[in-house]
Amino acid sequence: MKCTRCKEKAVVALPSHNAGFCPPCYLKFFQRQVEKAIKAQKLFTFDDKILVALSGGKDSLALAKQLKDLGYDITGLHIDLAIPESSPIARGYVERFCTMYDIEMHVLEMDALGLPIPRVKEKIRRPVCSVCGKIKRYYFNKHALDHGFTVLATGHNLDDEAARLFSNVFRWDAAYLGDQGPALPAEKGFARKVKPLFRVSEFETANYCFIAGIDYGFAPCPYSKGASFTFYKTILDELEHKQPGRKISFYEGFLSKGRKAFARQDQDEGVLPTPCSQCSYPTSEDVCGVCRIRQNLGT
Amino acid sequence: MKCTRCKEKAVVALPSHNAGFCPPCYLKFFQRQVEKAIKAQKLFTFDDKILVALSGGKDSLALAKQLKDLGYDITGLHIDLAIPESSPIARGYVERFCTMYDIEMHVLEMDALGLPIPRVKEKIRRPVCSVCGKIKRYYFNKHALDHGFTVLATGHNLDDEAARLFSNVFRWDAAYLGDQGPALPAEKGFARKVKPLFRVSEFETANYCFIAGIDYGFAPCPYSKGASFTFYKTILDELEHKQPGRKISFYEGFLSKGRKAFARQDQDEGVLPTPCSQCSYPTSEDVCGVCRIRQNLGT
Repeated sequence: MKCTRCKEKAVVALPSHNAGFCPPCYLKFFQRQVEKAIKAQKLFTFDDKILVALSGGKDSLALAKQLKDLGYDITGLHIDLAIPESSPIARGYVERFCTMYDIEMHVLEMDALGLPIPRVKEKIRRPVCSVCGKIKRYYFNKHALDHGFTVLATGHNLDDEAARLFSNVFRWDAAYLGDQGPALPAEKGFARKVKPLFRVSEFETANYCFIAGIDYGFAPCPYSKGASFTFYKTILDELEHKQPGRKISFYEGFLSKGRKAFARQDQDEGVLPTPCSQCSYPTSEDVCGVCRIRQNLGT
Repeated sequence: MKCTRCKEKAVVALPSHNAGFCPPCYLKFFQRQVEKAIKAQKLFTFDDKILVALSGGKDSLALAKQLKDLGYDITGLHIDLAIPESSPIARGYVERFCTMYDIEMHVLEMDALGLPIPRVKEKIRRPVCSVCGKIKRYYFNKHALDHGFTVLATGHNLDDEAARLFSNVFRWDAAYLGDQGPALPAEKGFARKVKPLFRVSEFETANYCFIAGIDYGFAPCPYSKGASFTFYKTILDELEHKQPGRKISFYEGFLSKGRKAFARQDQDEGVLPTPCSQCSYPTSEDVCGVCRIRQNLGT
């Protein structure tokens, strides 16, 4: 197979784009996808001060590298969850990455903040993943607001987004469907959130890291059974295999045609959050979820 | 496994209902599902004059038997497509069924009406299935209106409906999504259309015919590669296998939560059909699709 752009030998085949690329052209293709996502969905501009959530995995590092290369004003934020089996490894990947590419990096240590995930896990009865996610979202948001960032960027890719959409559609969850998308506007107490990798798949991001020489983390969380929405991702992969391009057309079709239907409905039924009485984070209760976890831990 | 109702030995297991049934209780279960569908979606009443589309397959015969048993006023309509390999066999099943259960039966012969499907197939370039479907819908509708039937009932089951919904969602086809459902109201030039089997799966309908002793047709159309939406049905079967009950909750969730979003949208964007200049059938063109086929054939 020859490269679609330069006719050299292709090393990556992309049936969804009916194309194949040599390594240098693949890097250009990938960057074009990220640029297209940012522009088409008006995610942010060169005036924005962008906080990038860095877990140390392929998606977050690929995202930071892309935004840096494109010239955006970015700062990385890593949350050290204090899980002995995985957190030091993940943090190491992020630190080496930020040093190598000269990216300013902030770290929040859950140990120092009184919420080490192993202790949280001991105290709660339900699976820790959803609580850990809640804590991370809380601190990413708080850090963005406290330090004057105008945008919080995360590395969610097309597979993540399409699987979440699939799951929401299967439950016809109008509130989630109305809200889903690559850009959530800033609202009282919430930073603007964006997902600039929504046009590229997991496969494409992994390939990008491989070709760009980005050393990303294989430090699976010992508490997690695997990525979220695994089953929906498998089904979407089957659809994609059968009809290349369906994943992105499903997601972009939702953005252009489906979402507005639910957005209108959502306005009728939405509940406005109020500030938590302990920490001011927006919540539908008196005390927010993270403050309740903290109370539970006595920290 | 014991029958959920009477504790005798069960012969059918239904994970989606978390139940199992012996033969007599299965027949009651099946009837209950059809009654529930008719009542919950207000499909028709005992005052309605119902035309039932009878292909000779399991779904249409199960539907006719159910409506007859429940005491509704039904008449069967079979369309003889004049395909030598399959039409006489299918017609035979319908004739024997209607004789056995004392159901009035009408037949429309496509040969006599100038549209035998083998000739249609010769004349057109695209796959004949969609054209054949168009011709059948045309004549079912016309016959209902011409003979004073207030409702046209078809044997579409849960698998058909969920797969169609899945396909429409994947394309975010707002017009189709706004219209999809087990009841389409009568509109100028269109009879009211209903699908009373939308709560029962293909497996459940086949089981019903087997237990009720209904001899249904195995006369596959020589032109068709198989049932429509086969791939979507396979995917939905995987979901159902993993999470029993998801097929019906997906479809009913759409009816109760999803559809209204698209119905509102549809009102803004809908195009009203006008009568065909040849036959008065509603169409968005000057001459309707069936009259154009007829012109093409010179009949």
